[in-house]
Amino acid sequence: MRPERRKLSIALLLVAAASLLSWQALPADGGKPAPLVIQEQGSFAAGGSVIANPGTFDPYKPTPAGQTFHGDHVYAFYQIPVNARKMPLVLWHGAGQFSRTWETTPDGREGYQNIFLRRGFGVYVIDQPRRGDAGRSTVATTIAPTPDEQVWFGMFRVGVWPNYFPGVQFSRDRETLNQYFRSMTPNTGPFEIEVASAGVSALFDRIGPAILVTHSQSGGLGWVTAIKNQNVRAIVAYEPGSNFIFPEGEVPPPMPSSAGPLEGVGVPLPDFMRLTRIPIVVYFGDNIPALPTASPGEDNWRVRLAMARLWRDAVNRHGGDVILVHLPEIGIRGNTHFPFSDLNNLEVADQMSKFLEAKDLD
Amino acid sequence: MRPERRKLSIALLLVAAASLLSWQALPADGGKPAPLVIQEQGSFAAGGSVIANPGTFDPYKPTPAGQTFHGDHVYAFYQIPVNARKMPLVLWHGAGQFSRTWETTPDGREGYQNIFLRRGFGVYVIDQPRRGDAGRSTVATTIAPTPDEQVWFGMFRVGVWPNYFPGVQFSRDRETLNQYFRSMTPNTGPFEIEVASAGVSALFDRIGPAILVTHSQSGGLGWVTAIKNQNVRAIVAYEPGSNFIFPEGEVPPPMPSSAGPLEGVGVPLPDFMRLTRIPIVVYFGDNIPALPTASPGEDNWRVRLAMARLWRDAVNRHGGDVILVHLPEIGIRGNTHFPFSDLNNLEVADQMSKFLEAKDLD
Repeated sequence: MRPERRKLSIALLLVAAASLLSWQALPADGGKPAPLVIQEQGSFAAGGSVIANPGTFDPYKPTPAGQTFHGDHVYAFYQIPVNARKMPLVLWHGAGQFSRTWETTPDGREGYQNIFLRRGFGVYVIDQPRRGDAGRSTVATTIAPTPDEQVWFGMFRVGVWPNYFPGVQFSRDRETLNQYFRSMTPNTGPFEIEVASAGVSALFDRIGPAILVTHSQSGGLGWVTAIKNQNVRAIVAYEPGSNFIFPEGEVPPPMPSSAGPLEGVGVPLPDFMRLTRIPIVVYFGDNIPALPTASPGEDNWRVRLAMARLWRDAVNRHGGDVILVHLPEIGIRGNTHFPFSDLNNLEVADQMSKFLEAKDLD
Repeated sequence: MRPERRKLSIALLLVAAASLLSWQALPADGGKPAPLVIQEQGSFAAGGSVIANPGTFDPYKPTPAGQTFHGDHVYAFYQIPVNARKMPLVLWHGAGQFSRTWETTPDGREGYQNIFLRRGFGVYVIDQPRRGDAGRSTVATTIAPTPDEQVWFGMFRVGVWPNYFPGVQFSRDRETLNQYFRSMTPNTGPFEIEVASAGVSALFDRIGPAILVTHSQSGGLGWVTAIKNQNVRAIVAYEPGSNFIFPEGEVPPPMPSSAGPLEGVGVPLPDFMRLTRIPIVVYFGDNIPALPTASPGEDNWRVRLAMARLWRDAVNRHGGDVILVHLPEIGIRGNTHFPFSDLNNLEVADQMSKFLEAKDLD
């Protein structure tokens, strides 16, 4: 066989073999997972803005005059498996986090990036504008190393420092906690809802219709992005924590908590109505108290879950399709603020797969 | 066939098909490249330090007392192909850059990450401590959006703004330049050779023997890392630009240039001698003048290439194995400061493959 024909045949064989693999391509015997078969992967920036200094640049005597600065873009690393499903997933981290959220779990297992590649989805993992690899910000900032990790341990509902919650789906070895704390990276410019959502909207302009998966702070950014861009065809929101959007005049009263008050946000009705046109599922984990508590890490999520329920009701009252799943209510227990990277994340992913199947999104 | 057996057979078929693929798994006819077949991929942090505030943390009334801050680690995203070669590559970006350096090229083609996965190498793409996704720094900093891109255009030898060099291996469309400028991200803490090299050395502790590929500023960091860690088994350095290390007493005099003077750095002889024990290849691109010029972007590289030659001679005089390749001298023309992502990057990669083969590193 001529070399080119041989290469072509082998490539076809690869594609055929890959397409025969069911999407649960994990070995039944606990051995090595099957290889990931990636048709295409790469990275790019989308959106952002440009500062252009007045004047003329002199390459022989350079000053800032006449120079530019590109910033406020989103950065995406994407992988498309062979025979990909029709719509890819865009995985968006939360506050203080970056792409790592969706990659390897703190205890070293596969995160949603690999899990959903195995299930046949194209996967775009992003760093939002002014975070991580999308660090070039058009507005200055100062970053200080303020020790704060014991607050995050509580706020992320691993436990109440130094104690882990009984039955929490989080490995207790030291290296897991080390990796967990090192999965944070600071804002490199002021956090602005408009800048972050505009960058991700530009990503959707580039890639076309896709499913947005958000976490925590990006939940609220996700609603704004979906209002901006009709290529957001569905949202899976893990523990959305802020910027709950209601029609003006229907914003519920602020909810006090021992972590501070939580307020809804009013927008014009036509903007809000865009959220009624796509299927949305919202998941919350465990150890969220029903009644007020003096523990801010827990009380914070009591009011956020309560606000999310009011938000679900508002969207559905206007004809929308929001499902809210409190995981313990369906027997899935021990989840932290990061259900997708918890010890039971395959079970959590199965719930998401069922949703995507039910809504004909796969 | 039982489902598990069917999955196993298909997985074996995949592995067999992948292993038949030659490492130049690109189609001869310009069609789609063959899929990447990845046995394992993920991310982790390595190294770094911890600030521990004195006092006791009170989860009910949190203050900084008793809290910790993990920072100064390196972040790595790795992919290991099926039937990987014995040693992986660690790809380390230069000043102002991040992992994107090695991913998709500014004009949208495959970078070294994909090229060397196709050639059978495990690939670790990193963000160095205090950069990009490894942004948590134990020392504070301020980041300001200073317009500076026309300087970089010259310093990276794309041309002398606003003109491109004739024959430059860089696409002239606007989107390429947009992606190029958005491939930068700021330091999130002070740049420190010790911190950066310690982080990458910790990575080599974790992954074992590997080949280090550096660019520009990481060239000088690479020498320091190789002195620290014997798991650095070879270095491929693209346009190393600073921190050329000589034995104390053998440091050449500073070299003036219109971009400022370049100085070598003296270290104790036993440290320097570690650089003589591994094969090293250094590549420089085109448009580096032989004689002084008033154009700082060009003159900068005139002295850096000259210093690199003195450095090669010093290492080899002490029994080392450094090869310096000025690409135009072997007929490869038009390369910028980023030969691995230029339009001819496959040809540039072929040179690297030949080096790895000649040194029995593949």
